[in-house]
Amino acid sequence: MSGVVVPLKGEQSGKVKTASVEPLVELVRPDMERVNRLILSKCGSDIELIPEVARHLIDSGGKRLRPMLTIAAAAMCGYKGDHHVTLAASVEFMHTATLLHDDVVDESDLRRGKLAARMLWGNQASVLVGDFLLGQAFRMMVEAGSLQALDVLSHAATVIAEGEVLQLSTAKNLDTTQDEYMQVVKAKTAALFAAATEVGPILAGSGKAVTSAFRSYGNNLGLAFQLIDDALDYGGNAKTLGKNVGDDFREGKVTLPVLLCYRRGNDAERNFWREAIEHGKNDSSRLEEAMRLMHEHNALGDTLERARQYCELAQDALATFEDTPHKAALIEVLEYSLLRAN
Amino acid sequence: MSGVVVPLKGEQSGKVKTASVEPLVELVRPDMERVNRLILSKCGSDIELIPEVARHLIDSGGKRLRPMLTIAAAAMCGYKGDHHVTLAASVEFMHTATLLHDDVVDESDLRRGKLAARMLWGNQASVLVGDFLLGQAFRMMVEAGSLQALDVLSHAATVIAEGEVLQLSTAKNLDTTQDEYMQVVKAKTAALFAAATEVGPILAGSGKAVTSAFRSYGNNLGLAFQLIDDALDYGGNAKTLGKNVGDDFREGKVTLPVLLCYRRGNDAERNFWREAIEHGKNDSSRLEEAMRLMHEHNALGDTLERARQYCELAQDALATFEDTPHKAALIEVLEYSLLRAN
Repeated sequence: MSGVVVPLKGEQSGKVKTASVEPLVELVRPDMERVNRLILSKCGSDIELIPEVARHLIDSGGKRLRPMLTIAAAAMCGYKGDHHVTLAASVEFMHTATLLHDDVVDESDLRRGKLAARMLWGNQASVLVGDFLLGQAFRMMVEAGSLQALDVLSHAATVIAEGEVLQLSTAKNLDTTQDEYMQVVKAKTAALFAAATEVGPILAGSGKAVTSAFRSYGNNLGLAFQLIDDALDYGGNAKTLGKNVGDDFREGKVTLPVLLCYRRGNDAERNFWREAIEHGKNDSSRLEEAMRLMHEHNALGDTLERARQYCELAQDALATFEDTPHKAALIEVLEYSLLRAN
Repeated sequence: MSGVVVPLKGEQSGKVKTASVEPLVELVRPDMERVNRLILSKCGSDIELIPEVARHLIDSGGKRLRPMLTIAAAAMCGYKGDHHVTLAASVEFMHTATLLHDDVVDESDLRRGKLAARMLWGNQASVLVGDFLLGQAFRMMVEAGSLQALDVLSHAATVIAEGEVLQLSTAKNLDTTQDEYMQVVKAKTAALFAAATEVGPILAGSGKAVTSAFRSYGNNLGLAFQLIDDALDYGGNAKTLGKNVGDDFREGKVTLPVLLCYRRGNDAERNFWREAIEHGKNDSSRLEEAMRLMHEHNALGDTLERARQYCELAQDALATFEDTPHKAALIEVLEYSLLRAN
């Protein structure tokens, strides 16, 4: 898969890439420490099972990219209060709740390289602790006191659920069009990235032009993020992924690389994909064949090229803002995301 | 089961009981028509499966008692705006979302006398459409614009989830104490009744004394409501219940009548309950035996006596308010609830 990433505009090609998420992590570190403390305290409940299940996932080393976006966007817009910490924690709770419900819906065994909560405590606890965390997320939004932010985040909650429902109908369905697939990605992944980023400037009292720009950054980063994840599933390694290469294949997930391969293949190949995705013929020799077909049709390369275009849109969205360390860090996250797939 | 209901204070015993929910229904009818239209419009989504699943439950003839409480409480406190309609719809959506998730958690086959949504569309759709409705509920709360009402309702959302999780640990556990059981009922049922009623005066701008009084009415009605439901499961008929007599027994649910019978029984009886609740020995001859034991230990009578006491607390909570048709209707709901079990 080397060589498939085309650099973002304005970068010298041939330059050694060292883009990293570290500058962002450093800039938001003090606030993220407060976010992390808040997250732990809001997992608490007299009902012992709740913190147990919640912390299983929360301690499992997610990158907390979404809350970092809230913190960075608020700081970049000059916000001086404390509510960005509250909203950042609330965004992470929304995300965690979604993961708990997702695992039940997808019948997944693993999450971030650990057994999924549902494997340890059952589907029941996953559904209910997800509901609890969603409730806590809304309580924190109420605490933050911004009706505009509440509007953005509660809207995102419905859009995410719509995306997940839409995904049920595209699941194992190779007739899904690329448009339909991107609609799922926009709803189930990009909506929360967009909302998480937008609430930063909202807290800062920024006007429509600024909130829209940040929303656009978040939305496009979210789209790219999911496509990169789709590509990595056929080419990454378990350590980077927090899941195993081929998980999507074994679960019969229809993702962009699969759709590209399916449409570009001949009849025999399309038959191979139907057997694999729709009828569960997905042993390791078939995974190898799938990866060979991906290579032949440049499906991973084209998926990542699509991701690169979304990253450019995200970069453009921030173009008119003053150059600051926060802006540079947010741009570097885009580059890092693309490099992670390389 | 006749004769077990002791009339509320101030009623002449021996008088023929004609208490009904109709006076409340009549008073709130115009507003409830708006609530019902709003509910239907907010079920809408471009994703077809969502209105399909949501309407299956929403059209299934629930009494909509909770939103009626919001409407009546707002009217009784002199509220003149439109947001009580929005919050009433939002309360019903929270309730519907809970039912969808409940059916998955309980693995129930029936709901309100129809096949549960999960039996028709699978657990996946039930989880996700529940999430969608919860998101819509929050969006409507945001529309209503009262941070205080948002605080009350979002708090209720977390308490309900806590109650459901607590219920997992009491499920099929005959060592559950009555206190523990009532804690579950308070969280999973009474919390939403309390919040639904409290947001009425909150919208009207009433002070603490008034909002607390309405909250107390809702909370105690909710506690009574659940206990009456528990008793009816061993003595009602499928038409009144929307479920079959003995459903709780067959699902191995530990409810107050069961706990009373278990504690009051001899060793042989306690063994019978263990076999029935913990080991699924619950055929129809055993259900008959269970009902015989309930009679012997006056378990249903005492459960309903407990419900009657909660209804008195609810009545007391409204005692200091001026006598109005709304107040009379809310008191009559208490009497009706007790009579329904007679």
